[in-house]
Amino acid sequence: MKVVVLVGGVGGARFLLGVKQALGMPAVGEPEQPTPHEVSAVVNIGDDAWMHGLRVCPDLDTCMYTLGGGIDSEKGWGRVEETWSVSAELAAYGAEPNWFGLGDRDIATHLVRSRMLRAGYPLSAVTEALCDRWRPGVRLLPVSDERVETHVAIEGPEGQGPRAVHFQEWWVRYRAEPAAQAIVPVGADEAEPAPGVSEALEQADVVLIAPSNPVVSIGTLLAVPGFGAALRATQAPVVGLSPIVGGQPVRGMADACLNAIEVDSTAEAVGGHYGARPTGGVLDAWLVHSGDNVDVPGVAVRQVPLLMSDVEATAQMARAAFEIAGLPVPEGAR
Amino acid sequence: MKVVVLVGGVGGARFLLGVKQALGMPAVGEPEQPTPHEVSAVVNIGDDAWMHGLRVCPDLDTCMYTLGGGIDSEKGWGRVEETWSVSAELAAYGAEPNWFGLGDRDIATHLVRSRMLRAGYPLSAVTEALCDRWRPGVRLLPVSDERVETHVAIEGPEGQGPRAVHFQEWWVRYRAEPAAQAIVPVGADEAEPAPGVSEALEQADVVLIAPSNPVVSIGTLLAVPGFGAALRATQAPVVGLSPIVGGQPVRGMADACLNAIEVDSTAEAVGGHYGARPTGGVLDAWLVHSGDNVDVPGVAVRQVPLLMSDVEATAQMARAAFEIAGLPVPEGAR
Repeated sequence: MKVVVLVGGVGGARFLLGVKQALGMPAVGEPEQPTPHEVSAVVNIGDDAWMHGLRVCPDLDTCMYTLGGGIDSEKGWGRVEETWSVSAELAAYGAEPNWFGLGDRDIATHLVRSRMLRAGYPLSAVTEALCDRWRPGVRLLPVSDERVETHVAIEGPEGQGPRAVHFQEWWVRYRAEPAAQAIVPVGADEAEPAPGVSEALEQADVVLIAPSNPVVSIGTLLAVPGFGAALRATQAPVVGLSPIVGGQPVRGMADACLNAIEVDSTAEAVGGHYGARPTGGVLDAWLVHSGDNVDVPGVAVRQVPLLMSDVEATAQMARAAFEIAGLPVPEGAR
Repeated sequence: MKVVVLVGGVGGARFLLGVKQALGMPAVGEPEQPTPHEVSAVVNIGDDAWMHGLRVCPDLDTCMYTLGGGIDSEKGWGRVEETWSVSAELAAYGAEPNWFGLGDRDIATHLVRSRMLRAGYPLSAVTEALCDRWRPGVRLLPVSDERVETHVAIEGPEGQGPRAVHFQEWWVRYRAEPAAQAIVPVGADEAEPAPGVSEALEQADVVLIAPSNPVVSIGTLLAVPGFGAALRATQAPVVGLSPIVGGQPVRGMADACLNAIEVDSTAEAVGGHYGARPTGGVLDAWLVHSGDNVDVPGVAVRQVPLLMSDVEATAQMARAAFEIAGLPVPEGAR
């Protein structure tokens, strides 16, 4: 079975653990035996940024570290047993930005990546090279090799109108507190899907939309025109999983992003925002949390537990997605 | 008194500690009170290299850390209380070069430098910015803002003639074991002295040549045509201190470099290699170690203890240099 999953960072990475387990693969690492299943993750790049001359790709790295066994599972991002010497020294130099913590181990990843990018390798090739070490058991595909960066318009100094900041600055430095007047995936219009992305969608048996941020993770993927077109054109059923449970985002500050695009923080509103495929949207089915009574016209909706409290609970979510897509739940996977 | 010192790395940095102390300044850091003395160090850049996408300047950093109080004084280079997370991770990625250890704290320096260089700042301005933090109490001037890199020709694979490697590769990776067939300061011919270098020589009361490697440290400085010309033209007396004591280099593998240019590893041969100013050389005076009976035609030679066993012993060397230059040893400095 060929599964394509659209993901952001922490939530997407955890969801991928469950998808692997649902397919009978080890959640972390590669299967020891060949498996008939193939998982490709199309990963958001809108959070990527240059920091201290290093290209930082938070979502790709979170997926890579999570699936490769290197994640700090308590925080959900960054490396386990991380040290912080470099950041302390950068602060002693007064280097900016001083609000984004880069761990030492993590910096090695950014050094390898930045060097390869500067040598002319595209991000997809760099990601593949990094995964040679991490063996995530999932093909991690950046949605594009071109630069797509999410910028956020916030209130500027009095009388000077709004100003634009990088998503990371709004999210990490300002904790999404100044209201976002607009959220713009800069460069998306001109970006092409990375090699392998459209092919993966074309050959997929099922496409899952992880319970990631609908605006700055999934929204950024959909903003790449060739990606949106390939998703709408795939023969495979597309099943989304709601990141909103009981009117609250499961994790993070997705509501601050949904406010900016005037979508309510409810499973119904997000499902409606994604929309039904026959009417130009992207969903065939929409999984919502048990007890969330939701109607999305043209979309098959089912209530299942949607809290990723552990890998097995997450695997159950993936199995429910396979079921509503009309696919057999893989043998030996229960 | 305006003192200019030509230096390489570890030996040069330690010599600068003694020069400062001889001038009544604190060896480490800046004087608390204004001082009538001004020390400028012209620093070798031939060891500089790009490693993992970072611009590494070993001699500039050794001087900066030594004079600013951040050096690992046991090793003589690198940061005190260093950690090694990044290098361990780079090795896990299989990133090359794997034979050059970059400490985490040190990497922060290279990140700040590389970012500024890529933004278009010249190395001299970058060095000044880094010194804003370290306050070495000495103006550290890279000999040039242009790229001058020492390459070494060594025996290549059988039947394929010699091959060229970066000086660091020969020195650190191969421990100077394959004989150097040639040592070439690539780019020196085309390089101009960095801003401030020629002016410092012009205004100097005395120029000291530290007991650094005569080939790959001092030799690289002299290979920059405008620097050699300014040194030969200065009104100030030029006093060299021999790095060879009793027929042995005090530190490092200077003999391996001297072999390559067919100069014996003796204080006399190195003095003769530098040569007397009236005959196109650079020396007015040459300090050699007690017991080394040396004659260099046209150069005033004096025997004094030349082992930098501690800062005070090193300060005595600087005082001897001031004396042979006919300068008063600064008041309050004994």
